[in-house]
Amino acid sequence: MSGTKCVGAQSVCFTEEIYVLGRAAVVGKKEGDGPLRSFFDEIDETDMFEGKNWNDAESRMMQKAAALAIRKAGLTPKQVRMLFAGDLLGQLLASSFGAGELPIPFLGVYGACSTMGESLLLASMAVDGGYADCAEAVTSSHFASAEKEFRFPLGYGNQRPLAATWTVTGSGALVVGNRTTLERCRTQREEPAGKYAQAVREGIEVVVAGGTVGCVTDYGVKDKANMGACMAPAAAAVVEAHLRDFHREPSEYDKIITGDLGSIGAKIFADLLGQKGYRVEPVQEDCGLLIYDNELQDTHSGGSGCGCSAVTLAGYLLDKLYEGEWNRILFVPTGALLSPVSANEGSSIPGIAHAIVLERRKEGR
Amino acid sequence: MSGTKCVGAQSVCFTEEIYVLGRAAVVGKKEGDGPLRSFFDEIDETDMFEGKNWNDAESRMMQKAAALAIRKAGLTPKQVRMLFAGDLLGQLLASSFGAGELPIPFLGVYGACSTMGESLLLASMAVDGGYADCAEAVTSSHFASAEKEFRFPLGYGNQRPLAATWTVTGSGALVVGNRTTLERCRTQREEPAGKYAQAVREGIEVVVAGGTVGCVTDYGVKDKANMGACMAPAAAAVVEAHLRDFHREPSEYDKIITGDLGSIGAKIFADLLGQKGYRVEPVQEDCGLLIYDNELQDTHSGGSGCGCSAVTLAGYLLDKLYEGEWNRILFVPTGALLSPVSANEGSSIPGIAHAIVLERRKEGR
Repeated sequence: MSGTKCVGAQSVCFTEEIYVLGRAAVVGKKEGDGPLRSFFDEIDETDMFEGKNWNDAESRMMQKAAALAIRKAGLTPKQVRMLFAGDLLGQLLASSFGAGELPIPFLGVYGACSTMGESLLLASMAVDGGYADCAEAVTSSHFASAEKEFRFPLGYGNQRPLAATWTVTGSGALVVGNRTTLERCRTQREEPAGKYAQAVREGIEVVVAGGTVGCVTDYGVKDKANMGACMAPAAAAVVEAHLRDFHREPSEYDKIITGDLGSIGAKIFADLLGQKGYRVEPVQEDCGLLIYDNELQDTHSGGSGCGCSAVTLAGYLLDKLYEGEWNRILFVPTGALLSPVSANEGSSIPGIAHAIVLERRKEGR
Repeated sequence: MSGTKCVGAQSVCFTEEIYVLGRAAVVGKKEGDGPLRSFFDEIDETDMFEGKNWNDAESRMMQKAAALAIRKAGLTPKQVRMLFAGDLLGQLLASSFGAGELPIPFLGVYGACSTMGESLLLASMAVDGGYADCAEAVTSSHFASAEKEFRFPLGYGNQRPLAATWTVTGSGALVVGNRTTLERCRTQREEPAGKYAQAVREGIEVVVAGGTVGCVTDYGVKDKANMGACMAPAAAAVVEAHLRDFHREPSEYDKIITGDLGSIGAKIFADLLGQKGYRVEPVQEDCGLLIYDNELQDTHSGGSGCGCSAVTLAGYLLDKLYEGEWNRILFVPTGALLSPVSANEGSSIPGIAHAIVLERRKEGR
C-alpha cells in the first residue's frame, strides 16, 4: 500500500502513520442507558448540557467533546491546527457555535450522518499531507434539535413508524496527529483505566490507514421515515469501490461497520454487496444497531445522526481495536442527504457514505 | 516558502504547483446585467436554469458550472477525483442534488459565503498532498432560494434596509490539478477568445500557492441585515494571521479581495487591519462591491452569497491574473455563520473567512 497516496478510482492511503491521539464521546441520557454506556466519557442525564435551548445544548455538547479529546491527547486547543466539524442542523448551527469557543482554524463539513467519515478523512489527509501536525474531527447530533429540524418539535408528540431511526444525542471527537506529535504527547496523554490503558502502555496505537470517498447515490427512495433504505445503496457502492480499489475481500476486515443503516438498511446493504459477489454478513455491524437495546429502549429501526457513528467510534470501536479484539476495521458512516425543504417538495433522498480503514499497530514495528 | 507545508500558526503553502485547469461562472439575470457581464460563461435571463423550483434551479446552476469547468479543462467528470462543494441552504441542498448528477466522489463543505475559500483550499490540499491528480471546488447561491431560507419568500415583497446585501444568483467552479494533469489536458483545454487565450498560448498559468484557514470570530453583532459588520472581524483576523505567517505586507499583493463584506463591512475590515498596523486600502477590493453597479441596480450594500466570490473569482479575478494585470492576489471569501433558527433565537452572528494566495506563473520558469 505504501508509495502512492491515490489508490484505484476513488481511494486514498496514508503513507505516514496517522495516529489517533485523543478521543471523546459525550452523550445524552438515552445513549447512557444503552449497551455502550461504559464506553462513553460523559453522559448528561438532562440532555441539556447546561444550554438554554436544544441547539445551544448541541453546541455545548460538541464543544465539550472537542475540548475533552484534545485534553485526553495531552494537548491544548492552540496545538490543534485544524478542526473539521459538522452536524445535521441547517448552516451547521451546532458546530459553528461550538467551534466559536475554540481557538482552532475551522473547516465546516457536511455529509449528513456520514459527516464523521468525511471529517476524519480530511483531518487525516491534512496531517498525512503535511498541512497539520495535529487535526481534529468532531461531529454531533441531538435528538431534540434534529426532530425539530426534520420532523416535529418534541412537544407535538408525533408517532413514529417502525422503519424510523432514533437520532442519537451525542458528539464524538477524534484528534489525529503524526509521529512527532505522538512522541510529544505520549507522556502527557490521560491514562484511562482498564484494558485500554494497558494496551497504550504496551505501545499499542490505532492509525487511520486510508479510506474511500463516496459519490452521491440516489435510488429514488422518498420515505424520510426509512432512511436506512435511502443510505444503503451509497454504503454498498462505497464499500464495493473500496474493496475493488484495495483488492481486498470483506474477510480481510475484522469488522465492516456502517454508520446508521438500522435493521432495514443493514439488510439491503448486505444484499446489494451480495449481488456484487461480496459476502459481508460475517463481519457486518452497524453503529445504529449497536448503540441502543431496541427491545428495552423502543428505538424502532436503530440509532442515527452524525453523533451515532461518531460516539460509537470514539468509544466502543476504538476500545476494541486498542484491546486487540480487532486488528483492522472498515468504518463506513452513512448519510441521507435530505433537507426539510427537499422532503416537503417531494424530492428523493440521495445517500452518501465514506469508508475509513482503522488499524491496530504495535509501536516500533 | 518551499520545503515546508505548514507556515506559521495557521497557514499552509503548496510545494507542488497547483494549477487552475478549468473554471466556469454561471449566473442569473441581475448578475448578467452588472459590470462583470463579459466575464461570465453563462447567463440565464429567467434565473430558473430549467429547474422546477428555486432550489432545483440552484442545483441545476451548480451542476452546470461544475460540468462546464471540467469541460473547459478538457477533462471528463470521471477524471476528477474529488468534488468539494457547498452552498447556503440547509443540509447543502443545492450541492447535494447538483453533485448527485456527477459521478465524482463528493465532499460537502460549509462556511457560509466563505465556502469557495474552504472548498478551493481543500481541493488544492488534496492535489498537493497527492490524494488527487485533479479536484474541483464549486459553490453556489441563488437570490430566491436564499431569501426564502433566511428572510422571506420573494412574493412577500419585504423591504430591505440599506445595510443589507443582495444574494448573488451564481455558481462558480474551479478545477485544479497537478503538473501531470496540466500536461495531459493542455492540448484539450477549450481555447477561449481574447487576451486570456493569448496568455495561455504564451504558457501563462495561475497557481494556488497557499492559504490561511480562519477561526470562527464573534464580535457579538446580531443584525442579520448587516452581515458585512458580522464578517469583517473574521476577515481582518485571517488576513492579519496570513500576513504574519508569511511575513508579508499588504503591498506584496496586487489585490486583497474580500468576499462579500459590502460597503459597510469593507470599511470596518480596513479599519481593523489599520489598528494592527496594516494599511490595506490601496490594494483592497470586495467581490460584493465589484459584481453589481449599486447606482443602477439598487443593491444597497453590495452582493453576497457563496456564489458572489465564486463567480467573481472564476470570471473577473482569474482573467486579470492570466492577462497580467495582477501577479499575486489574496482571495478572502467571508462567511456569516447564521441560520434562520439562530437568528430567530436572538443569537449573535459569528463570522469566518479563509485566505487563498493565487499567483500568475510563466510556465517553464
